[in-house]
Amino acid sequence: MELKLYVDRISQPSRAILIFCKANGIEFEEVKIDLAKKQHHFPEFAEVNPMKQVPAIVHGDFKLFESHAILIYLASAFPGVAHHWYPADVQKRAKIHSVLDWHHSNLRRGSVGYIFNTAVALALGLPANPQAAAEGEELMSASLAKLDSFWLEGDAPFLLGNSKPSIADLALVCEIMQLEFADEEDRERILGPHKRILKWIKDTKNATAPYFDEIHSIMVPIREKLKELKVQASEK
Amino acid sequence: MELKLYVDRISQPSRAILIFCKANGIEFEEVKIDLAKKQHHFPEFAEVNPMKQVPAIVHGDFKLFESHAILIYLASAFPGVAHHWYPADVQKRAKIHSVLDWHHSNLRRGSVGYIFNTAVALALGLPANPQAAAEGEELMSASLAKLDSFWLEGDAPFLLGNSKPSIADLALVCEIMQLEFADEEDRERILGPHKRILKWIKDTKNATAPYFDEIHSIMVPIREKLKELKVQASEK
Repeated sequence: MELKLYVDRISQPSRAILIFCKANGIEFEEVKIDLAKKQHHFPEFAEVNPMKQVPAIVHGDFKLFESHAILIYLASAFPGVAHHWYPADVQKRAKIHSVLDWHHSNLRRGSVGYIFNTAVALALGLPANPQAAAEGEELMSASLAKLDSFWLEGDAPFLLGNSKPSIADLALVCEIMQLEFADEEDRERILGPHKRILKWIKDTKNATAPYFDEIHSIMVPIREKLKELKVQASEK
Repeated sequence: MELKLYVDRISQPSRAILIFCKANGIEFEEVKIDLAKKQHHFPEFAEVNPMKQVPAIVHGDFKLFESHAILIYLASAFPGVAHHWYPADVQKRAKIHSVLDWHHSNLRRGSVGYIFNTAVALALGLPANPQAAAEGEELMSASLAKLDSFWLEGDAPFLLGNSKPSIADLALVCEIMQLEFADEEDRERILGPHKRILKWIKDTKNATAPYFDEIHSIMVPIREKLKELKVQASEK
């Protein structure tokens, strides 16, 4: 049964799904929905996802959107996926759902508000809202503190005291990677104090090598372009 | 194994969990965490949920928070729960996850912003933000339109074209019930145009009778109290 991933690698949940498939040997066709070209608003994409967002998948004739739901589906529907990504044990699974649900209203909401209003809006030529950026940073910082003090337990390399990554590690680390679009000093200010999180990012990267870097390589030229745009904006 | 639910019935996800347990014959002890008395900030509750939010559960020595994760856990861990609440089929389950994930950033986010800033803040003596109320209403209305046109398909009484309710129906209907705290004309303006949603609320209520009304009965005196507070505030 053919699997199509409708993604844009600048979108953090799109990257999580691409890395997940590659790391687990799941074959797929990558269909780029170019957000900068507003392709997510094209009528043919509304057939795939009426919410007009990436990522979305089509597997045979089954359509699905929402990245956490997709990760759970892929981990459940493809028999080759290693157990640690989404354990069958009801309590272990519940903890993964709990992190992913928490993510929606905390880290993700903060990160999207901050990065959109400090970087993405500039790249897309849209107006930025400084107050929303500040609120986003506040929520993102509070979320990183909770990750550092609660979700990353003791010396275990992954969330929930696990020795191997789950879909939650991948989803949350890809979100934090969005900070690559921020200015270097801002990134250092927000992320620098959290040594445990920096180690976790590295551990997740290593556990999914070489795909993590391959899929994130798109961020480098965009970051350079954003630097130029910021210089231009400050000279106006 | 003993099940304790840490809840406040004024919280919509708390109500969803209480109704779910009652409708499925799951025995539990209800531990009220009085939000108006800020009991969710008490140190003894941080032992249960370090995020200081209701609902949370303790089942034996297993602790869990985030209401969607709790509903999935209860449906999976208690063998008496009817299949339709959380089907075993991977694709049916994926669709339920998709609705629940969508809910986080849409209906729930809109509803919380709107109801907090038009009613709950007043009840708790906290400052309300009219702009956040307006943004909340806009997002809530857009979400109700998507429910009406997409998630509630054809003539099926429940979400995703189902003939029986799932945990997603319960979670989302309890969220919409929070509009009972709004002024009558506001509720009519927001919800009135959506006949399909009004029918769905009724169908969910009937499918979980008499527990739905029993658990929601707490809203009536609070709504009356809110009316009084609004009159007092307007006379100032």
